[in-house]
Amino acid sequence: MKRVSVGKLYEFACKALMHYGMNAGDAEVTARTLVTTDTFGVLSHGTKNLCQYIQKIQAGGIDPKAKPAILREGPAWAILDGKRAMGMVSACRGMALAVEKARKTGIAYVGVRNSCHFGAAGYYANLAAAQGMIGIAMSNADPNMAIPGSRDVAIGNNPFSFAVPVRSGESIFLDIALSNVAALKVVMAKERGEQVPLGWLIDDQGVPTTDPSGFPHDSHLLPMAAHKGYGLAVMVESLAGLLTGAGMLGEVSSWNLNLASPNNAGHAFIAIDCAQMMPPERFGDRVEQMARELHDAPKGQGTEKIFLPGEMEWAKRRKALEEDAIELTQAMADSLIKLSGMCGIPLE
Amino acid sequence: MKRVSVGKLYEFACKALMHYGMNAGDAEVTARTLVTTDTFGVLSHGTKNLCQYIQKIQAGGIDPKAKPAILREGPAWAILDGKRAMGMVSACRGMALAVEKARKTGIAYVGVRNSCHFGAAGYYANLAAAQGMIGIAMSNADPNMAIPGSRDVAIGNNPFSFAVPVRSGESIFLDIALSNVAALKVVMAKERGEQVPLGWLIDDQGVPTTDPSGFPHDSHLLPMAAHKGYGLAVMVESLAGLLTGAGMLGEVSSWNLNLASPNNAGHAFIAIDCAQMMPPERFGDRVEQMARELHDAPKGQGTEKIFLPGEMEWAKRRKALEEDAIELTQAMADSLIKLSGMCGIPLE
Repeated sequence: MKRVSVGKLYEFACKALMHYGMNAGDAEVTARTLVTTDTFGVLSHGTKNLCQYIQKIQAGGIDPKAKPAILREGPAWAILDGKRAMGMVSACRGMALAVEKARKTGIAYVGVRNSCHFGAAGYYANLAAAQGMIGIAMSNADPNMAIPGSRDVAIGNNPFSFAVPVRSGESIFLDIALSNVAALKVVMAKERGEQVPLGWLIDDQGVPTTDPSGFPHDSHLLPMAAHKGYGLAVMVESLAGLLTGAGMLGEVSSWNLNLASPNNAGHAFIAIDCAQMMPPERFGDRVEQMARELHDAPKGQGTEKIFLPGEMEWAKRRKALEEDAIELTQAMADSLIKLSGMCGIPLE
Repeated sequence: MKRVSVGKLYEFACKALMHYGMNAGDAEVTARTLVTTDTFGVLSHGTKNLCQYIQKIQAGGIDPKAKPAILREGPAWAILDGKRAMGMVSACRGMALAVEKARKTGIAYVGVRNSCHFGAAGYYANLAAAQGMIGIAMSNADPNMAIPGSRDVAIGNNPFSFAVPVRSGESIFLDIALSNVAALKVVMAKERGEQVPLGWLIDDQGVPTTDPSGFPHDSHLLPMAAHKGYGLAVMVESLAGLLTGAGMLGEVSSWNLNLASPNNAGHAFIAIDCAQMMPPERFGDRVEQMARELHDAPKGQGTEKIFLPGEMEWAKRRKALEEDAIELTQAMADSLIKLSGMCGIPLE
């Protein structure tokens, strides 16, 4: 297991992005999003993908100099045109704008079109929580999930996230994709030659299967909880794709398989300024009461601690910052070394 | 199988509610909510429960004369005090207010405290869709679901719903509870002496079980998709309970087991006025495009048709209205006959 310094990884990411034409401010926003995601332990959505984002810049699918702009707006909403900017740049702008508007009106919605894969949804929900607001963030994605009755993919496993501010600074937050499991888990079972539980996959006839050997060509991810996950994916598609004017369903291109094409994804951000609805002291007390009651639920066999949503991620982040170290997976190390070689910027 | 006329069921419900002290307007709102839910085929959440709501009025847990009032409000939000009114009355008022505010600001949030079980969440999301808006409706509930690591219930299987307006008038909508399955399904398996699939229940030690025989005392519902459903239930608890000033978690009392106590539940309603973000013609076209693409997904073995979220429910409603008939379950017939006997109002 290799380790990398959090600070040095951030500097490396900034320099690499600037090397490929991004200005310092946008490079910092992007690097902060990806490295923070790594510190939460969500290594599949952090700097592991930086090399591919940069390859997408090189191929023309991302414009590193684009300036997302407001297309239309009202007192409590806006539609942003991402103009093919890096997804993290459009998404951070989107949530910042939602927070700014919610400060005046109590709640705000910002939709983003012409965007690209934004990494981990939870980062953006947490931007609102850091401002004392409840944040909700979501994105559509290219179709990678079957729907009830289909034998092929038909909708993205559209990520959905929320965060609730907590006095300690460590929000209660959830960041999920709407498939039953992540594709990565299926790929790992496939590589080990193992079967997967029923409910993860259907085969190419639409029949539930435990065999991941042909994934993703001959078998497909299922929505979490069947029709429930399907319905929630349609909700995300509606708020992030349909209403923003972004690509919908098959109009969204795989961001990493089609590097030269714009991803065409859309995002939706909602911020709710809790302090308007309830005095902050009372809100803070009530959050702690809710957390305490969940923590104190009677524990089952083998359970030492009950976790709040996001609590494990905050513990990983605290450890990473204390030790100034992120433990890399092999895939992440390989990807960062490749990028270092491409741009000639060293990474220790 | 018994059948009842939709119109006569509505009249019966109105008269019964007025008999127990409700004014005509509130009785109509309540009856319309419950009977519409029946026509969608969601018989577990419609007039089957009317007898128990009325018993809760008699026991003092619901005040049939209460007038929900705005406690605090801003341009795009409000907190309503339900004042222990019938849940349907507070909830319809809540979503109507969210729609009214969203018409000015684009999006609005209305939270309700001091409320009671509101029936089916989907009804309220559809109130927004009927006004051309995307609606989201949710409620907390008394703890009836385990959480990851617990061996007892710790949170409600908090219902969540959204609806997207469609030109045809038949919205795309989802109305779910956040447990893997409804308690009713477990009870039915128990009555038939059958086992249930793994993932539905844990036993009283927190160990997954397929044995429903001791439900709900010795076994407990699990969240859908494990930590994902748990996290979403915490989101609903935050928006409907925490932020509204309603009861949270164990402060919410079972509405039907503790008839004399206020239920103390909270609800949250969000309305988004799509017409401000996108010209209605374009929005309508895009909804139809999304629907067409989902309908046209390649079908799996044995699938004749792929359904949109809510499509089966609209088909049931169309049939019920065409035939002016709802087919009653035995539980529903028993409950309505009991109520008819209690209040002396005949139901054909």
